[in-house]
Order: sequence, then structure tokens, then C-alpha cells
Amino acid sequence: MLGPSSSNTGAGMRAMVSRAPPTISLAAMGSHRFDTAVHARRLAAAAAAAADAGLAGLVITPGYDLRYLIGSRAQTFERLTALVIPASGDATVVLPRLELASLADSAAVELGVSVQEWVDGEDPYRLVRDALGGAAAAVTESMPALHLLPLAEVLGAVPVLATDVLRQLRMIKEPAEIDALRKAGAAIDRVHARVPEFLGPGRTEADVAADIAEAIVAEGHSEVAFIIVGSGPHGADPHHEVSDRELQPGDVVVVDIGGSYEPGYHSDSTRTYSIGQPDPEVAKQYSLLQQAQRAAVAAVRPGVTAEQVDAAARDVLAEAGLAEYFVHRTGHGIGLCVHEEPYIVAGNDLPLAPGMAFSVEPGIYFPGRWGARIEDIVIVTEDGAVSVNNRPHELIVVT
Amino acid sequence: MLGPSSSNTGAGMRAMVSRAPPTISLAAMGSHRFDTAVHARRLAAAAAAAADAGLAGLVITPGYDLRYLIGSRAQTFERLTALVIPASGDATVVLPRLELASLADSAAVELGVSVQEWVDGEDPYRLVRDALGGAAAAVTESMPALHLLPLAEVLGAVPVLATDVLRQLRMIKEPAEIDALRKAGAAIDRVHARVPEFLGPGRTEADVAADIAEAIVAEGHSEVAFIIVGSGPHGADPHHEVSDRELQPGDVVVVDIGGSYEPGYHSDSTRTYSIGQPDPEVAKQYSLLQQAQRAAVAAVRPGVTAEQVDAAARDVLAEAGLAEYFVHRTGHGIGLCVHEEPYIVAGNDLPLAPGMAFSVEPGIYFPGRWGARIEDIVIVTEDGAVSVNNRPHELIVVT
Repeated sequence: MLGPSSSNTGAGMRAMVSRAPPTISLAAMGSHRFDTAVHARRLAAAAAAAADAGLAGLVITPGYDLRYLIGSRAQTFERLTALVIPASGDATVVLPRLELASLADSAAVELGVSVQEWVDGEDPYRLVRDALGGAAAAVTESMPALHLLPLAEVLGAVPVLATDVLRQLRMIKEPAEIDALRKAGAAIDRVHARVPEFLGPGRTEADVAADIAEAIVAEGHSEVAFIIVGSGPHGADPHHEVSDRELQPGDVVVVDIGGSYEPGYHSDSTRTYSIGQPDPEVAKQYSLLQQAQRAAVAAVRPGVTAEQVDAAARDVLAEAGLAEYFVHRTGHGIGLCVHEEPYIVAGNDLPLAPGMAFSVEPGIYFPGRWGARIEDIVIVTEDGAVSVNNRPHELIVVT
Repeated sequence: MLGPSSSNTGAGMRAMVSRAPPTISLAAMGSHRFDTAVHARRLAAAAAAAADAGLAGLVITPGYDLRYLIGSRAQTFERLTALVIPASGDATVVLPRLELASLADSAAVELGVSVQEWVDGEDPYRLVRDALGGAAAAVTESMPALHLLPLAEVLGAVPVLATDVLRQLRMIKEPAEIDALRKAGAAIDRVHARVPEFLGPGRTEADVAADIAEAIVAEGHSEVAFIIVGSGPHGADPHHEVSDRELQPGDVVVVDIGGSYEPGYHSDSTRTYSIGQPDPEVAKQYSLLQQAQRAAVAAVRPGVTAEQVDAAARDVLAEAGLAEYFVHRTGHGIGLCVHEEPYIVAGNDLPLAPGMAFSVEPGIYFPGRWGARIEDIVIVTEDGAVSVNNRPHELIVVT
């Protein structure tokens, strides 16, 4: 294979290991439509934020920031592709001549972004420096050392992370982004509605996950992002994914699933199931978890801080003596990336604002026995929150 | 979803967009076996190379280098996981407490590598500095800016790339690696043997690619790495992947395919097919390409430089007046990564040595008309080269 289309992660046209025939990405083949006005607004806002931060500009290599800014899904690694956004002046895409065709699958052309192509043997980092017009650069979090170190050398200065500059922009979702998150949420709700038919004694977590994977795509997602099926004692490990354990009568099963919905926004929802009627103790503790999740969602409104939402869930469980069993943060922002800001965690005094989207997902975990989690994605409104997930929160008994 | 298991690329337990049901990764679920002696030798060699380079040591975050050194397939992004290899002294893995369980799926425990866990709120970069015992670090190419910039700050020095330090080690394949490359080569040969049955007038490149994807896994690969089906004029674009173009009688079709074979070594082989008998001009030019590919393989032996192998193919085509139609390098190294060193390209005066593995893949491209490429992976021996691919090199006529 020749080279420039590949990434170092092996993504691109990849199908995963499989029992069933693998499938290939149509998205990787197809072309996408772009709302030029939206991308133009984002570029201008990014340049303004760079100016406010006293930077010469931003340098964005392939990843979520590049996708957010110009819609590009490029995954090149070996050869530098970079969007350069100077604090003032026009943006430039620096890319290998071999990748010129890939520009058509971004909004770059319609946006009138300048293009600086380079070929093997030329120094692309000088092109970046020239397009930037200064030494003080901020770079996207995912820029690999392979490019960051030579860029720092050419600039004569070590860049800073663009995270702070782009945070506000990416955290506040625009109407089209909220629409995509709602559609993703509705799609994963339809998957959860089908999960009971996948569960049953004797089936393995992996069997269930395979059915869920199929349903995630069948219900409208373009990709499966992740699948956690934690049955019985596995449910007590919040970081368990999937195993060959067979479901047994009496199991409590945590099902945490999500996918990517075009143009790339994610769903992420957890429900907990019981194979047969649950033990009364399980039912009692689960109802406390329901209260905790509800309390956290009820706390969401503009001006409330991320840590206050976390505390709202935590306080309910602490009052019931369950504090030590809730071992993770309450939630994470979501959008093009499954985990992004704002993080709903102790110590984060960020005030919430309309348009922010994040998970509210308290859980309780009893090592070696069982666990439970309830997760919805909510969007901050002018006076509260709306959930994009609307399946019942009860422990779902599968008989 | 909770968080620590995800990567920023969305890989992990991902299935691609699909027409057919998606599939999930068993490899991502299963545990792998490790040859501790092999990994111990690699760690020691890496430390020695770091010492030779005058470095305090190496800092390796998830990616191919980490997989090579300790077998870890970790894909974490948000929270720092890093293998620290000091030039002298014991190696340490710095990782989030949440990821402790993932150590079981690497050779770290058997190797007796120290473990430094950290939790949210702690500074993992100080742990790296302490494990390194000095400021002069080399980092893996894929380390993201998210971790590299804070590490540079804590070290008080900008790291360098570990590429040069690890190059020699990773380029020279060990017997087990060569065995994996041979098995991968045999598997992709079996796929090429089946390709004629997938080709036919009226089928689209995407149809053919879907069949090939299935065959790649059916023939023993754990993952599809890439599929190029370039028919007719598409074959003249060496960077074409797959489209909805229907095959037509008289098409010349370039099929460049590869997958990952456990424990992660890649196949990569190109053959060119003709739908019906080819035009005599096509047959003539194709036979020159065969000569060029053969000449390049014949040039391979220890001490010959990478650029001499490139020149061997190029000279044959130049003598026939086809120089301008061979628009890319002759080959690339292959192993855990589909593209790695050595690159078989003009300007690379690296002398070849036994154990190096790379592609030999000259091509000819007539814009708007047709193209052809022949690609085998070869391994340098004591006195020449052996090919891991053994399908006939002729233009394969599909009737």
C-alpha cells in the first residue's frame, strides 16, 4: 500500500476482528456536505479567541478540532496536514500534494481557505510558520510529537495547548449540533428498547454486545463507539467492557452503549437490567441511585457549576451511606468526541451555560457482587436542562 | 460511558459504518500471550540505545512503540499512560489507577516493570520525571501534545523524538516477527487467489472491497487494514481507495490489500487484474513493470542501500521511457505498522541489513486511462531477499 492515506492508528478503512464478516466504511468513501456559514463562523471565532489569548494563531492537525473547524475527517499521520489560523488574516491549510484531493471532503474550499501544498523533501513546518506570521502558536491536543517537535524548532518557541482557546467554542453547542445530539440520543434509546430481547440466561456478554452493535447501526448510527455489558460481578467494575461470561438468573446487568451519528455526534446512554426479579436489597439501593441521578439533572441550570451537579448526585448517595460505592465523576461533555469538556467532577468550578451537553451518570458498585449505573445526556437550556435520552430509569426486569 | 478506556480516535471497540451488520473486536476483549524474554531483550536494547544517545531515557505513550516494547495495546488518550525506560535502572509504567487492570494485557507484570499509579488530581508528569532520573528525554512519535507539552514543562527541557533511538531495533525483525509477517503474507496470498471470483462487469469497486474485507478475515487476519480497488481510470490514481464505479469489460484493476495478523503484523500485497483480455499496449507496458519489480527485488541484499533498490526499479522503467509514469517511492518498511522504516526511496542511503522487511511495489499510472502496480513484501536475508508473497506476478485476466 502506498502510504499517504493511512494513519498511525490503523484507522481509516478498517474493519474490526470479527466472527461475522467485517464491514467497511461507507463514510470513508463518501463525500459529506458542509454548512459553510457554520464553519466560517467557527474559524472567525477561533481566530478571535487566539487574538484574545495574545497568540499569533492556532495550528490544528487532524483530529476532532480539525473536524469541528473545517469538517475534515483526515487521519493522516506521517506527512503533515495542518490548518493554520492566524489571529488576524486568512486561514491556510498546509498539506502534502498527495492529499490535495482530500480537501474536497472538507469545507476548506468553500471557505476560501488558502492551500499550501508540499512534496516530500520540502519542509512543511516553514510553511506553517509563514502562514502563522509569528512564533506564539497554540496547537491541538492530538498533534503528535512527530510534528510538534519539528514545529517548535522552526518556530523557535514551544507552542501551548489550544485547549483553553477552543474550549468555550466547542463546549457551547450550536443548534445543528444539538439537533445531531438529539437524533443520536433518540437512536440509542431505540437500541435500549431492544436490549431486553438480547438478554437471557446462557447468553454471553459478547453475544449480547454483538446484537447491540448490529442494533446501534440499524437504528441510524454510522458507527459503534463503545459497548459495555457488565453482568453480575462484572457490573461492579465500572471499567469492565465485555467478556465471555454467561448471564445467569438473578444477574444485574449494566449496559452502557453509544455510537456516532452523522455528522459525527455521539450518543451515550446507560441502563441497568435485571435477569429475573431483583433481590429486595438491590431494588432498594437501585432506587437510591435513581434519586441521585434525578437530583443531579434537577441541579443543572446556567450559572450552577459543574462540581455542584456532581455534588447533587453524590450527596443523595452519601446520605444513604453509599458514598464509598460511587467511585467516579458524575459526567463528561459530549459532541464530536465521546469525552470532552465540560467534565462534571469535584473541583471543576466552571459555570454551566446554555448549549453545553454532558452526561449525568452516577453509579454504585459493590465489588464482587453487582453494580448499577443510569446515564442520560442532557443539554443546558436557559432555565434548566433537557435530556436527549428518554427511556425509563427503572431497573428493567427481563423475564 | 465512563471514560478511561476510550481513545481520542474513537478506535477501540469500534465497528465501521456498514451495509451489513457491524462486528466487534474479539482481540479487544481477549487477553494476549507474551514472550517475556523477547520483551525483556527489547527493553534492554532500548535502554542501551538511549544511553548511547546520551539521553536520560525514553518516554513511550500508547502506540506502536509501546506495543513493540511491552506488548500493550492500550489506546488511552485523556489520562497519561507512559512507559519510562531510563538509560540505566529499571523501567516504570506510569498509569491511571483506573487502568491498572489493563497491565494484565501486556508483558509489564512478567517483566517486573515498576508501576506508578496516579489518580485524578495528581501530576503524572512528575512521576515520569522521577522515573526518568534526568531531563533529556526522547518520546515516541505518537505522543500527543496534550501530554508532551506538560511533560516538557516539568522536565524543564523539550524532549526529542525517540525515532532515531528505536529505529535500528524496530527495523531488524526477530524470528517471531518474521514468522508473523510470513503468515500474514500467506494469508493475503490466499485472498488474492480468490479476488478473480469477486471481479466482474457490473460489480462496483465497493462490492468487490466488501467481498475482499470478508476474505481478509476469513483467511486468518484479525483485522482489515486497508483495501484499494482502482478500476480503469481510477487505477491511474495511486491514492484512490474505493468508489461506486462499476467494473467494465477491458478495465485494468489495481487491487492493493492488507490486514493485521496476530500478534499484530501486517500483510500488504498488490496484484493487477484485467477484466477480459488486455489491450496489447497494456500487456506490453505491464511486462515492463514486471521487469522493474523483479529488478528491485533482485537488487536487495545486505549492504545495498534503500535508494539503490528504488533506483533498480526506476531504471528499468526509465529505460523504457516510462519514468514519468512511476510517481511514488518503491516501498516502505512493514511490521506492527503498515508503514515504517526503512523507506525504499531516493535519498535514503541506509544500508540494508538481514531482518529488514519492506514492500517492493513499483507502479505505472496513465492519468485518465489505467494504472498497474505489483507489490510483494520481502525480507532481507544474509545474501539476498525472500518474498513473503508468492502469487504469480502476471496481469491476471478475469473472464
